[in-house]
Amino acid sequence: MKKQLQVGILGFGTVGSGVLSILKHHENKISQVTGEELNVKKVLVRNTEKNRGALSEGIELTTDAAAILEDPEIDIVIEVMGSIEIAKDYITQALRAGKHVVTANKDLIALHGNELVALAKEYHCDLYYEASVAGGIPILRTIVDSLASDNIQKVFGIVNGTTNFMLSEMTNKNKTYEEALKKAQDLGFAESDPTNDVDGIDAARKMVILTRLAFGMNVELDQIETRGIRNVKLADIEMAKRLGYRIKLIGSAVGMNDSSVHVDVGPVLVPENHPLAGVQNENNAVFVVGAAVGETMFYGPGAGALPTATSVVSDVITVAKNIGLGTTGNVFNSYQHETTITEDKAVESKYYIAIEMQDQTGRFLELTTIFSKSAVGFDQIIQQPLPEASAKVVIVTHTMNKIQQKAVLSTLKETEGMKLLACFKVMEGK
Amino acid sequence: MKKQLQVGILGFGTVGSGVLSILKHHENKISQVTGEELNVKKVLVRNTEKNRGALSEGIELTTDAAAILEDPEIDIVIEVMGSIEIAKDYITQALRAGKHVVTANKDLIALHGNELVALAKEYHCDLYYEASVAGGIPILRTIVDSLASDNIQKVFGIVNGTTNFMLSEMTNKNKTYEEALKKAQDLGFAESDPTNDVDGIDAARKMVILTRLAFGMNVELDQIETRGIRNVKLADIEMAKRLGYRIKLIGSAVGMNDSSVHVDVGPVLVPENHPLAGVQNENNAVFVVGAAVGETMFYGPGAGALPTATSVVSDVITVAKNIGLGTTGNVFNSYQHETTITEDKAVESKYYIAIEMQDQTGRFLELTTIFSKSAVGFDQIIQQPLPEASAKVVIVTHTMNKIQQKAVLSTLKETEGMKLLACFKVMEGK
Repeated sequence: MKKQLQVGILGFGTVGSGVLSILKHHENKISQVTGEELNVKKVLVRNTEKNRGALSEGIELTTDAAAILEDPEIDIVIEVMGSIEIAKDYITQALRAGKHVVTANKDLIALHGNELVALAKEYHCDLYYEASVAGGIPILRTIVDSLASDNIQKVFGIVNGTTNFMLSEMTNKNKTYEEALKKAQDLGFAESDPTNDVDGIDAARKMVILTRLAFGMNVELDQIETRGIRNVKLADIEMAKRLGYRIKLIGSAVGMNDSSVHVDVGPVLVPENHPLAGVQNENNAVFVVGAAVGETMFYGPGAGALPTATSVVSDVITVAKNIGLGTTGNVFNSYQHETTITEDKAVESKYYIAIEMQDQTGRFLELTTIFSKSAVGFDQIIQQPLPEASAKVVIVTHTMNKIQQKAVLSTLKETEGMKLLACFKVMEGK
Repeated sequence: MKKQLQVGILGFGTVGSGVLSILKHHENKISQVTGEELNVKKVLVRNTEKNRGALSEGIELTTDAAAILEDPEIDIVIEVMGSIEIAKDYITQALRAGKHVVTANKDLIALHGNELVALAKEYHCDLYYEASVAGGIPILRTIVDSLASDNIQKVFGIVNGTTNFMLSEMTNKNKTYEEALKKAQDLGFAESDPTNDVDGIDAARKMVILTRLAFGMNVELDQIETRGIRNVKLADIEMAKRLGYRIKLIGSAVGMNDSSVHVDVGPVLVPENHPLAGVQNENNAVFVVGAAVGETMFYGPGAGALPTATSVVSDVITVAKNIGLGTTGNVFNSYQHETTITEDKAVESKYYIAIEMQDQTGRFLELTTIFSKSAVGFDQIIQQPLPEASAKVVIVTHTMNKIQQKAVLSTLKETEGMKLLACFKVMEGK
């Protein structure tokens, strides 16, 4: 007879419902691959009176977390309630009680992942969090398991579905930022306060997790230069198209030969024939570049109840297999490396720089002088007239390092009659 | 002190050299993630006299397979020699001697995978073969581990690098089939006898393996309608472009609601904005569509010594971890399902059909009558004049089932004055 594993779920929102639905509908397959039966015993809810239909049949709903965390029968706790501090508290209690934990909480894992991983190890419990990055794409497991043999040089891609949806609307339907944000909010992709998404904070948190797994390094959020899409104008998107690019919000972690890592998040001009340029709407896509394997890409839905729930249940299946094999408590990612941040002089990129300036004789010379003083050359320059005797100048620079870039930007900002409109990285490969 | 695991390698060709090189250069990381040290003790070669440089230092080269297969110290055997019968024999011996096996041999796994998996189970050994499909892309592990919670509905994509390289050359550089083949041969992507690649046999073998893992079904090669690219003309590629498509060799396994599966390989018109249309050169890309997760895609180098070797070494790492945990001998894929092939009437697609016919009054009516007799409608028709009073007609049909398609094609072939030039599937989604 198969052993029955008892599961407790913290949260009955969209992801929680998705998890219940998958566990129910794919019961046979799950039982076949794990050799165990999974039974959801209790779910933590805010309101036990709410009608949840057939999904909650036979399950005890409770508003008391302790009823789950202190239930000795429960083997596995699934945390899909969100928030940081309370979730951390509950997961800590669960691990201390010897329960295995699966969470989809990227904010929690980005901020307190190491601490929780150490706790799980101490109590010989499993702690998995595949759904915390890129929803339905099994990117964490791929980095840890399948690319374990390789030295990863670079991890980069589209890791925030909301902003990719908004940029897709702007690019494909000529919507303004405000229109795109409104549509994202109407469709439930963006919160009423969209700060975490549009300012790149969500993407930066995911890059913390990806960097930890790919490079074994712990980068703090404030070590990641993070810029969102709030300042991406339709005009920039159109200009980028004219130059053969699409603007995407890209998170990037690059390992250097000196064993340092540079992590940033920001709008990037991606060559139109690059696979990332074709990633539309709320989809995510992550490139992993390894010394041996070369370039690989993993693409799929970055969010959404069912894709996220799929990743959660895959983690639950892994835990169930580990329980069956008696191999729980082994740290998911054991690769560790001293964290060193790359110096500015070694961080190189091309840039797209848009400037508004008065359309006077000598201005253009002044502009080019600013760049040549920092020894920065141009790939392309486009000048467009604007109303009231001013002009917009768009420059795609040669590759420069971060010291040069900072010098150029600060001079541009100080120069009277010039206004810096935008400065985005440009991805090579055109 | 860490335990040292002894490894024997069968074959010192390009993949074998890649494996040795990765094991050497990533020694520290591998030892950190596995908790074991891997030592390559012996390699089977054809000629021990050949100079292999630093890679073979400290390793015993032998021309006698028994020296490896019967060496009680050797824990893991890596088979990268190719061929079917001899490799099968050696792997059988290895498993019977209680050695774990990692192989990159797709032909062997497609033809004898089930038998070898059963043998591995019998002798409590691990048998892994990630590198057998899509080189550096960890697609098998992804299907088995990460999508275990989902019901997979469809697996399709570009699984042969050689033909994708050739089609890329034809599409992007207007080369003929013969020119593209010659370039692929010059670059070492194609064999001097390219049959296995260009006739789709290699892709079909990979689909056997993918179908086994995604659907738990054992499809035989002769149950897969397999067509290669030998009959793809530059004219078809140009016509496809004009219609908004790219021609790719696509392997596809589709699960139906009646729990049957339809597997085929052939040239397909892929909409130009579909991610598969952008997969260039020798790269591979596999879409996995799950009921819950939706569409995910895995992209990367489909072949090549180092990418393939990366997958081999990842498998070796998995085996080393299993040895450390004492969990070897568990079947990699335990999902099994009765194999049923979908009936023709339920297999549906649009088709691109190219016909050469005499340019006479009434001919066109005759042509349309053939289609309407089978109740097949048209999306698009293009007629082009050809020399000597004949014309080429290209049709993109409405969706039809396989019975209709066979009826139309057989009537076209029988009709005097008409010549069927091409019939390729057309992927939806434009």
